[in-house]
Amino acid sequence: MTVLILTSEEDVTADMVVLRLGEAGVPVVRLDPADLTNGVALSGEYVQGACRGHLSVGGRLVSMNGLRSIWVRRPGQAAARAAQPSAWLTEESDQALYGMLRSTDARWMNHPDAARRARHKPWQLRLAQRAGLAVPATLITTFPQAAREFAERFPDLVVKPVSGAHPQEPPRAVPTSRVAPDADFSAVAFGPTLLQRRVPKRADVRLTVVGERLLAARKPVDPGAHPDDVDVRFAPSVSPWLPAQVPPRVAEAVHRYMKCAELAYGAFDFAEDADGIWWFLECNQSGQFGFVEMDTGQPIAAAIAGWLAGDGDAVPSAGGDGDQAG
Amino acid sequence: MTVLILTSEEDVTADMVVLRLGEAGVPVVRLDPADLTNGVALSGEYVQGACRGHLSVGGRLVSMNGLRSIWVRRPGQAAARAAQPSAWLTEESDQALYGMLRSTDARWMNHPDAARRARHKPWQLRLAQRAGLAVPATLITTFPQAAREFAERFPDLVVKPVSGAHPQEPPRAVPTSRVAPDADFSAVAFGPTLLQRRVPKRADVRLTVVGERLLAARKPVDPGAHPDDVDVRFAPSVSPWLPAQVPPRVAEAVHRYMKCAELAYGAFDFAEDADGIWWFLECNQSGQFGFVEMDTGQPIAAAIAGWLAGDGDAVPSAGGDGDQAG
Repeated sequence: MTVLILTSEEDVTADMVVLRLGEAGVPVVRLDPADLTNGVALSGEYVQGACRGHLSVGGRLVSMNGLRSIWVRRPGQAAARAAQPSAWLTEESDQALYGMLRSTDARWMNHPDAARRARHKPWQLRLAQRAGLAVPATLITTFPQAAREFAERFPDLVVKPVSGAHPQEPPRAVPTSRVAPDADFSAVAFGPTLLQRRVPKRADVRLTVVGERLLAARKPVDPGAHPDDVDVRFAPSVSPWLPAQVPPRVAEAVHRYMKCAELAYGAFDFAEDADGIWWFLECNQSGQFGFVEMDTGQPIAAAIAGWLAGDGDAVPSAGGDGDQAG
Repeated sequence: MTVLILTSEEDVTADMVVLRLGEAGVPVVRLDPADLTNGVALSGEYVQGACRGHLSVGGRLVSMNGLRSIWVRRPGQAAARAAQPSAWLTEESDQALYGMLRSTDARWMNHPDAARRARHKPWQLRLAQRAGLAVPATLITTFPQAAREFAERFPDLVVKPVSGAHPQEPPRAVPTSRVAPDADFSAVAFGPTLLQRRVPKRADVRLTVVGERLLAARKPVDPGAHPDDVDVRFAPSVSPWLPAQVPPRVAEAVHRYMKCAELAYGAFDFAEDADGIWWFLECNQSGQFGFVEMDTGQPIAAAIAGWLAGDGDAVPSAGGDGDQAG
């Protein structure tokens, strides 16, 4: 049984996982859908009630029925590197490849439908509430009056994008910023705006979930940090991420979230306040983990390799111990 | 409880359903996501574990918690008609609108995830097989040699697109065509090709499914029809669609298909052969039904209105009788 990894050629994070799978003797095929019809070929036959599908990558033939799991890492756009690329060829190749892969019994990390759904921030906030996580008061609106009233109730606000990243090539992250108390909210009418109560935080928390495993990392806010530096991705910092213990109630809620979202992998961002409460900010279903593993030494790549190599919902042991260690 | 219909302004098919809902006294809101921030506004508040969302259309305010059902008919691209449209505004508006709607308890016809999955032809073929429908031998391939061998086993073939429609604006349907027995299959290497055994048909069948209801229509092939006229959408024909009875085994299989696909609406195309077997060709989750209702008098619009107005999986009675009548 083979593990299929859909990603681009240059992906050092995928390399880490491939290495672990190789050490465990698990067959791996790495494929970039962008190479379809130019290095990658596919075939599926539907005859007499049965289906037999095959992929060919660099001359190697793999049966789709023999796929154990599929890791959707950073796949390129289908047929983007074909000899004569076109929107039509991309559409045909995308439908053919994913249409066949969707028909297999392989486990997905993450399934394309779950991944797409999980990107919706409003849906994330609602699911986090339902799962029992603490969610800062949030408003998403195009009504200036609603924004003004919200700012009166919650004077200390941040603003952030609804969709997460600016659709540029490459996508650009838009930093979360504080809203001045005397802000003019009339421009809200021109586009959905996400306003959120600012959590006065003493630490940022990144919780990486792989199947049933929770690997938390924590970075205390620098004592001299400026209160306007709300976005850990952009704030200057010299302190590294450190392994952290997950509070039991948060762990339960996160498991509920993952189950309901049908995700096998998720990277949660929390803001920890002075009382130790972890406030849910977002769950990125394709969040990076290399920087956490580098800082903390937590075996995230090994956990992913273990999940991909496993064949059930049981926690695979490939990663060894070391997660959740404080 | 309100029915929300996502569609463009000019949609006579939606008009038919709106009319039926109006007759039944069911509140309806019709909204085109393209009008977001320019006629359509939205707001969602997440405070203390609860979520309250609102939509405003033409000055009318609707609570998202009060939505009974959502009909995704022909929605425009979010914010496409905003005062200053942009890819960024579209992304933000799309995520905000669908992210909130996905968090409601409304029933969907069809849910966006189910709709997206259902468009994959290879997935359709496999599901049809599993559901117990007769599926003509089919090959989807980029291997010329596989195509040649398939043509030797099944010399009478048609070729059709994998993805259904050419991604133009407006999308262009690519007709299904016969493949000459001496075809050169070397070009298959440049793009996925769908080859299918041609079913020598005596009739085309369109089976419209609305919830649990099956409404079948049949159009006999003209006695003088040319065998190359395989695609009913493009073949010249003067005979109308007539109501048809659904064979019990086909009905069972179609119910299985719909349930597994999580679809509330689907338009199945079958080719009926000389033995009366219905061969599955495809299921279009957004297939038109106006032309069938016009020819057959079958109450499809009423059935859709009944489903949207209903609040369970039970068959609503709004459409009256008349379906499945021979």
